Amino acid sequence: VSSQPSAPLSAHHRSVKAARRLTKRSTRAEQQRFLAEGPQAVREALTAPPGGFPRGVPVAAEVFATADCGRRHPDLVEAAAASGCPWHLVSGEVLASLAQTVTPQGVVAVCHFVDRTLEEVVTPSSRLLAVGADVRDPGNAGTLMRCADAAGADGLVLAGTSVDAYNGKAVRATAGSLFHLPLAVGVPVHDTVSRARASGLQVLAADGSGDLDLFAAESAGLLDQRVAWLFGNEAWGLPAEVTRLADAVVRVPILGRAESLNLATAAAVCLYASARRQR
Amino acid sequence: VSSQPSAPLSAHHRSVKAARRLTKRSTRAEQQRFLAEGPQAVREALTAPPGGFPRGVPVAAEVFATADCGRRHPDLVEAAAASGCPWHLVSGEVLASLAQTVTPQGVVAVCHFVDRTLEEVVTPSSRLLAVGADVRDPGNAGTLMRCADAAGADGLVLAGTSVDAYNGKAVRATAGSLFHLPLAVGVPVHDTVSRARASGLQVLAADGSGDLDLFAAESAGLLDQRVAWLFGNEAWGLPAEVTRLADAVVRVPILGRAESLNLATAAAVCLYASARRQR
Repeated sequence: VSSQPSAPLSAHHRSVKAARRLTKRSTRAEQQRFLAEGPQAVREALTAPPGGFPRGVPVAAEVFATADCGRRHPDLVEAAAASGCPWHLVSGEVLASLAQTVTPQGVVAVCHFVDRTLEEVVTPSSRLLAVGADVRDPGNAGTLMRCADAAGADGLVLAGTSVDAYNGKAVRATAGSLFHLPLAVGVPVHDTVSRARASGLQVLAADGSGDLDLFAAESAGLLDQRVAWLFGNEAWGLPAEVTRLADAVVRVPILGRAESLNLATAAAVCLYASARRQR
Repeated sequence: VSSQPSAPLSAHHRSVKAARRLTKRSTRAEQQRFLAEGPQAVREALTAPPGGFPRGVPVAAEVFATADCGRRHPDLVEAAAASGCPWHLVSGEVLASLAQTVTPQGVVAVCHFVDRTLEEVVTPSSRLLAVGADVRDPGNAGTLMRCADAAGADGLVLAGTSVDAYNGKAVRATAGSLFHLPLAVGVPVHDTVSRARASGLQVLAADGSGDLDLFAAESAGLLDQRVAWLFGNEAWGLPAEVTRLADAVVRVPILGRAESLNLATAAAVCLYASARRQR
């Protein structure tokens, strides 16, 4: 069917219905699959190393695209063919039923989960790690991943009761980093900290309540070391039982009159500060 | 009317209708007023120094609130009374017609525009300024303002064809910084750069195309100086005719495999880097 561009799949086709169910978290968890939309994300999914990251299976399982999208992005059609990934032609209407944005850009891929175990993400050779503790907003979780990737982190752990990393909004906010950066999910914060420490990493909690500001932490040499940075929920920061686990609690100094920084911008400032010192 | 909590204003009341029209940009521009919603923003609006910032009039012109909100936030009711700002009781339904979020939290203020002239924002005593050039996304514009405030910037210029700073989503994303940080809007980028230079500021353009990375810029001493940082549109960065105006084009180094950083996180990294060196 997928090689017959003249016969788009109907809204009731088994594959379309199965894919549509992946917009629900429970189905994603059960099937260990999720949806990635837009040409950039689908390109990353199709070209993620097969057999390597994550578990020996190609990341992209199947692609749904409009005829127009196929014409605009022949590289995607080729990449799908090269990796043996089925390319299903669908109408704009059917595509819209799979996508979660107003402008889905004509293409959605069903992908296998890409997360790894905590032991694979936090290792004795890790130098810079980001840990989100109870991050509830999908946009924040995704942007945190994008920032961690940009700052050269070795991985991200979405720990505690963090939002589903495979939520459509989270996937979009990663801007493709979901397909690059080693990710562990659903791990207790406590286990993450233990594993980081056992791997020889310093543990720094980023929190507005910190008695050490980031500039002072730098002067004290804390940013020169291998580190796992803990970032909390935007609304309530890091709880005391988490900050207690850290070697130090560091705040990004608020130099003006803003009440706070949002999660991703605070994380970017901390991760880049460590990255700069580690070089 | 506003002192009669037993008589909420109807949806057709002149004041309600006038406020509702402020959800439109053209009405805002014509009346030089905008809407701020939620207890935090309304508190900031009510307590912004009267007669000082911006133009000799109190920032908050009138408040619309549900009875429940008044009970939960007696400090707001008092602040309104103290500053002579009318407090209109409305139903949840009428409030929802004024608010632009799903959960408006019971209170909306009509505020006078707070922007200043370019000459007031960019001055010979400015040390750190943020300039958004053609920033089109309201959330990005608001978050840029919040970051600039947090990093201790002296002001923000939303230059060129940037989004309306008084757009509801932009106002919310500033998280109150709109009421603190000196802001100029609607100024050509070229004029902003000229004014910055005439005020003795170095002009640095933040762009992924920069041949100098931020760490190298620091080593070269560029971050020690008084500076106006130019930030571009997320989709296409800064156009060549803008980067040409700058003393240097600096990129935030992408140390991992992310394609880019978003506008606000890149701005936070640059502004904090300058703030740290300037101290």
